[in-house]
Amino acid sequence: MIALDLAPLDPLPEDMAAYFGRCEDKLGLVPNVLKAYAFDAEKFRTFTAFYNEVMLAPSGLSKLEREMIAVVVSSANRCHYCLVAHGAAVRVLSGDPVLGETLAANYRAADLGPRQRAMLDFAWRLTCEPHAIEEADRAALRAVGFSDRDIWDIAAVAAFFNMSNRVAAATHMRPNKDYYGQGRGAPPG
Amino acid sequence: MIALDLAPLDPLPEDMAAYFGRCEDKLGLVPNVLKAYAFDAEKFRTFTAFYNEVMLAPSGLSKLEREMIAVVVSSANRCHYCLVAHGAAVRVLSGDPVLGETLAANYRAADLGPRQRAMLDFAWRLTCEPHAIEEADRAALRAVGFSDRDIWDIAAVAAFFNMSNRVAAATHMRPNKDYYGQGRGAPPG
Amino acid sequence: MIALDLAPLDPLPEDMAAYFGRCEDKLGLVPNVLKAYAFDAEKFRTFTAFYNEVMLAPSGLSKLEREMIAVVVSSANRCHYCLVAHGAAVRVLSGDPVLGETLAANYRAADLGPRQRAMLDFAWRLTCEPHAIEEADRAALRAVGFSDRDIWDIAAVAAFFNMSNRVAAATHMRPNKDYYGQGRGAPPG
Amino acid sequence: MIALDLAPLDPLPEDMAAYFGRCEDKLGLVPNVLKAYAFDAEKFRTFTAFYNEVMLAPSGLSKLEREMIAVVVSSANRCHYCLVAHGAAVRVLSGDPVLGETLAANYRAADLGPRQRAMLDFAWRLTCEPHAIEEADRAALRAVGFSDRDIWDIAAVAAFFNMSNRVAAATHMRPNKDYYGQGRGAPPG
Amino acid sequence: MIALDLAPLDPLPEDMAAYFGRCEDKLGLVPNVLKAYAFDAEKFRTFTAFYNEVMLAPSGLSKLEREMIAVVVSSANRCHYCLVAHGAAVRVLSGDPVLGETLAANYRAADLGPRQRAMLDFAWRLTCEPHAIEEADRAALRAVGFSDRDIWDIAAVAAFFNMSNRVAAATHMRPNKDYYGQGRGAPPG
Amino acid sequence: MIALDLAPLDPLPEDMAAYFGRCEDKLGLVPNVLKAYAFDAEKFRTFTAFYNEVMLAPSGLSKLEREMIAVVVSSANRCHYCLVAHGAAVRVLSGDPVLGETLAANYRAADLGPRQRAMLDFAWRLTCEPHAIEEADRAALRAVGFSDRDIWDIAAVAAFFNMSNRVAAATHMRPNKDYYGQGRGAPPG
Repeated sequence: MIALDLAPLDPLPEDMAAYFGRCEDKLGLVPNVLKAYAFDAEKFRTFTAFYNEVMLAPSGLSKLEREMIAVVVSSANRCHYCLVAHGAAVRVLSGDPVLGETLAANYRAADLGPRQRAMLDFAWRLTCEPHAIEEADRAALRAVGFSDRDIWDIAAVAAFFNMSNRVAAATHMRPNKDYYGQGRGAPPG
Repeated sequence: MIALDLAPLDPLPEDMAAYFGRCEDKLGLVPNVLKAYAFDAEKFRTFTAFYNEVMLAPSGLSKLEREMIAVVVSSANRCHYCLVAHGAAVRVLSGDPVLGETLAANYRAADLGPRQRAMLDFAWRLTCEPHAIEEADRAALRAVGFSDRDIWDIAAVAAFFNMSNRVAAATHMRPNKDYYGQGRGAPPG
Repeated sequence: MIALDLAPLDPLPEDMAAYFGRCEDKLGLVPNVLKAYAFDAEKFRTFTAFYNEVMLAPSGLSKLEREMIAVVVSSANRCHYCLVAHGAAVRVLSGDPVLGETLAANYRAADLGPRQRAMLDFAWRLTCEPHAIEEADRAALRAVGFSDRDIWDIAAVAAFFNMSNRVAAATHMRPNKDYYGQGRGAPPG
Repeated sequence: MIALDLAPLDPLPEDMAAYFGRCEDKLGLVPNVLKAYAFDAEKFRTFTAFYNEVMLAPSGLSKLEREMIAVVVSSANRCHYCLVAHGAAVRVLSGDPVLGETLAANYRAADLGPRQRAMLDFAWRLTCEPHAIEEADRAALRAVGFSDRDIWDIAAVAAFFNMSNRVAAATHMRPNKDYYGQGRGAPPG
Repeated sequence: MIALDLAPLDPLPEDMAAYFGRCEDKLGLVPNVLKAYAFDAEKFRTFTAFYNEVMLAPSGLSKLEREMIAVVVSSANRCHYCLVAHGAAVRVLSGDPVLGETLAANYRAADLGPRQRAMLDFAWRLTCEPHAIEEADRAALRAVGFSDRDIWDIAAVAAFFNMSNRVAAATHMRPNKDYYGQGRGAPPG
Repeated sequence: MIALDLAPLDPLPEDMAAYFGRCEDKLGLVPNVLKAYAFDAEKFRTFTAFYNEVMLAPSGLSKLEREMIAVVVSSANRCHYCLVAHGAAVRVLSGDPVLGETLAANYRAADLGPRQRAMLDFAWRLTCEPHAIEEADRAALRAVGFSDRDIWDIAAVAAFFNMSNRVAAATHMRPNKDYYGQGRGAPPG
């Protein structure tokens, strides 16, 4: 699952076992990234709390939009783990397998409205040339209706996956096999 | 302090006010990154808990080594905020102003032993071409004595600053002025 | 289907109509790239003849290996059309949906033997820095058993998709929707 | 001539021998790229048919313009073979040795009208960052008078040399010595 | 001081000894770059004469502005020697330690007026992609009030440090320790 | 000749007029770079003195080798002016038009012995990624017989053209037309 020899805690602390149980119930699997963090309880707890805040807390960005950013950042960084796991999330949340595949390949080829296109342009540039971000980049987000709070959230999600992609790359983290088949319903006509 | 209009909570929740108080006591300042997160209590709490786990939890890496990684990643990403804040930390923790400046400019020019050189080579590569990391890169760390647990920590710190650099870049976060002068004692003869 | 206004010949010349019929029979669809070329009979004929020679003629490379190269080159170039169309071909020919997805994301993360790894390393480098190819690169292919004839074929396939990716990019060519679902059988346990 | 041991067919099939004869008559030489393909009759036939369609078929682009694209793509890819062979073609067709040299060095330094400048900007970008081509790039071509059919041809030529450059690089193909001296008449005053 | 074994002339020619004396008087040190050139009298003389002309001759650019260009070019090239030596000069000449640090980290994060921003944009681009400079780049300088003579001087300084950075890199030149502490007065409130 | 409006001194100071006269006698032309510097006597004098020291002073590198470095650096930087002017010098000094063209296109394709290959590898890397030069790069030069003094000279020439290329790029300097035809004698059989 990863290329480092870091055995999960055994037995798992109760809160971690319960967390894994909720994953099974809700997702049908325990994401390998969580199993990877299971060698240390405090790392597991602070990572999951931080992740859930970034990806699930109330926001002007929908859950799907946050997953779209995750996929585009992971495409820029060519992160196999995150493309598979979050590509599945985009397919499932959008009900549109074409969208997930297109964002993974090259978001510029996707059929997007101006809001989501601006959001993904910002995420791409922040990933590839963070030192070049300037006021004009923020202005482009405001011009399509994002608030400053939304801009924070776009930045936070894009930044998070720049972290997560690198933990995956550094450890050769491999995704759960189940992700590959999720959300593969008949593509839209 | 940042280019987004996100006012801090007012009044601050008690735990956050206490946290700021401890920063003042210990560092003589409240880092601007913490003030930036103060617009939202849960974001503040999960970020600080996660940060403290990555940077301060027991590890095979010293606190200084983690700050060295922070500076080298921030140099690769040309992150002004983190170069100033963590450059100061390297100077203070090492008592060596030359080390901090050299890592900020070009870590390859620093006078490093093989352990720290391998650690920083990994952090640089993970930052600049994460998709190209392979078993040979992990092997190079093991060859200088790092355990798999240490490799996780190197990856976690390097990855963290790839996130943090991008939050700073996206928001045009500016460092506390006090950092510039810290640890500028007479350079070693 | 493409962003240029180039209507197909109407009626189609007999040989082209027959070609399209064979595609329908064999693949269940007429690939959009062929429809794109249908505005000009000689362009269609010379392109298909050349393509078939590169991808289907007898070779030391299997059909699957040639499709693997197609996917890896298209990943390097971030070509949406070819990743979808040839990603489907890798899934179908290999019966392994994980392989196709992994090559599309980052071939270095795929579970490959030394022969196919060397083949794909060559294709990647030839795509990304063709000016830097030297005798050592050919020697690495010979070292895993490729003949000089095989090396020609690896080069020819990788070079072909560097062309094809760019025709697709220049014209905003979009893939047939059917590709997305092909070869998505249950992933290997 | 190339770094692969691939002997030409011996004797050459009649059509290939005739083709070589026509080259000698018309060009005074048989281009080494054709000799390189002579190890396999079908590869030779489909390559030459496809090449001739791209470079010589009726088009809104002149023969010289297609050679100009060839040189600029080969400059981007730093392809020695194609810079020498097609640099000679530009010199001969234009009667302007300065033009050929300048396009080979840096097309932005050449003295070009808006039509040819736009054409070469598109070819350069399609070569260097194909994934970033968008409608605005096609619009820039239409703005200087190119039809959609012309845009196809610009793309086809630029894409072709992205292929051809890579076959040359992969095989260390060396150009006929005669090319170096062609079209070196006194430069325009 | 450098990684090449090139002993200074001994005794130093009179003019060189006098030059070193003037450095001691004026700067309190002899810059290591000058000691590095001291193995050859003619190289020393022509280098210092050329350097002084570029950096100290009358110009529409102030001495500080020329040092700002030096730092930004050295940042682009990640030149440890020049960042330390010329970073000190910016701090001393401007009396603003924040400016020097910010230009060294990422000039886009500095608080600059349009004149100096345009000047540094030009220097950065000329350093990173010289082949792409065009009339529009010169026009951007004229638009903020630079004369053609000033543009020459901006180009000359930026170009000079592209040279100097590389002599330092090639020889692993290390800066005088004294530079690190210079101009570190209390940062502006 | 250049895109800046900088008229030459009129009348030229005696020493500059004499210098131009010697150029006419020796080269049959006054290089445009010298005419470009003729707007300011001290800039002209210090530049020519420095240039002559780098390119013509006694050295372990032959004059041809220094011109080879000039061409390879200019190829990396895609500098039209210097490729034309110093490409001519390589052709004339070597009597080998193939060598000049090949170095301009891609030095890796040239037929070089280990000494000159190592020299040009160093010059290329110093140009493209100066921050990455390390002891191993210098060791590779020593391994083929270069002394530390020679390494200085390789660095000095490569660095000089990184400067000169950028002055040419910044000013859109165009080469004398006569260069194009120089040294175009019959290529070696």
